[in-house]
Amino acid sequence: MQLKKGESDRMMQKYPSVLLENAINELAKLPGIGKKTALRLALYTLKRTPEEITSLGEAIVNLRNHVNYCRVCHNICDEDICSICNDSSRDTALLCVVENIKDVMAIENTGQFHGLYHVLGGIISPMEGIGPNDLQIPDLIRRAQTGDVCEIILALSTTMEGDTTNFYIYRKLAGLNIKVSVIARGVSIGDEIEYADEITLGRSILNRTDFNDSFKQ
Amino acid sequence: MQLKKGESDRMMQKYPSVLLENAINELAKLPGIGKKTALRLALYTLKRTPEEITSLGEAIVNLRNHVNYCRVCHNICDEDICSICNDSSRDTALLCVVENIKDVMAIENTGQFHGLYHVLGGIISPMEGIGPNDLQIPDLIRRAQTGDVCEIILALSTTMEGDTTNFYIYRKLAGLNIKVSVIARGVSIGDEIEYADEITLGRSILNRTDFNDSFKQ
Repeated sequence: MQLKKGESDRMMQKYPSVLLENAINELAKLPGIGKKTALRLALYTLKRTPEEITSLGEAIVNLRNHVNYCRVCHNICDEDICSICNDSSRDTALLCVVENIKDVMAIENTGQFHGLYHVLGGIISPMEGIGPNDLQIPDLIRRAQTGDVCEIILALSTTMEGDTTNFYIYRKLAGLNIKVSVIARGVSIGDEIEYADEITLGRSILNRTDFNDSFKQ
Repeated sequence: MQLKKGESDRMMQKYPSVLLENAINELAKLPGIGKKTALRLALYTLKRTPEEITSLGEAIVNLRNHVNYCRVCHNICDEDICSICNDSSRDTALLCVVENIKDVMAIENTGQFHGLYHVLGGIISPMEGIGPNDLQIPDLIRRAQTGDVCEIILALSTTMEGDTTNFYIYRKLAGLNIKVSVIARGVSIGDEIEYADEITLGRSILNRTDFNDSFKQ
């Protein structure tokens, strides 16, 4: 049998149900999820009870619609101020600057840091058009200017963009009589903070070096 | 600095927000998605608009709550009877028995089959406690007994469970004057139908062999 005219059109994936197709298209927008995985996830939902799937749907929508950011450190939280900023046992004179909330969680997991955080929400990246004012850098400078902060630890990824952001913040803080340090370069060059193992990451918090010293061989 | 008492407790992942934790826990229930991927997906949703995420949530919940199965072939569909069963140009005397709707889609993609389907909803698996009556096998026998069907093609995965199911159906159909064939064993032994390439799968539909011949060397 030969392929009939128009038969090659059938090669394009057709789904037997519009509901299924919608779910697959929506799931396939998620990062790292292609059409085949989306189909598998969609069919998986059919094996669960409607309550379980409603609970999944609501959890995602609730997160998006009711998410809150701490107005001090910009970490995700449920209240106006996050539990870390509200914890009176923590050292308010010590500030750790990170790119995103995954980095806060990674550093909290080491159990080595007892100061507060400042979440930038990204790093300076001219290639992606992200400048200092698109991030929480102006607010970091404002926090530094209050005089409550003695030391700022820069814990950004050891990439070119991370280094650029470190430099920018270091120069902005010049003259404020604040010690600026960076986490020890135990984290391999080119690696992302969130994938570092806890021991290495914990050690790099303890062995932080003076910003000027960090460029010496 | 040494680890203080109770500090090892911090090693257990804590999330800064209950909403975030709920979303991660729900997402991590999906197959192939662990806590780290769930976190990445949850944080991804925060970068999209609330409308986009509501649309994702609704698509999943709608699929689960309003899914319909064709009452003839048990494929997923939006109506009472699916578009394949409703297509008057298809050969109603030819029935292709498959495990699930992914297999229907895979065979439709080959463009080589113009009969109807019968979706079993699984295969016989004593290990998982799935017997013939947990599947659409009794309904397949009923369809066969109507006298409209001349040939039944068994297109199950070439695994032990697939072979067991083939045998069971073959014996149930004995005496009904229906030709029973299996797709050509071009599909490698141990492989799943849905991952076969379209050429191999299409060829295996064309070269289907008589059920009795299929056991000859």
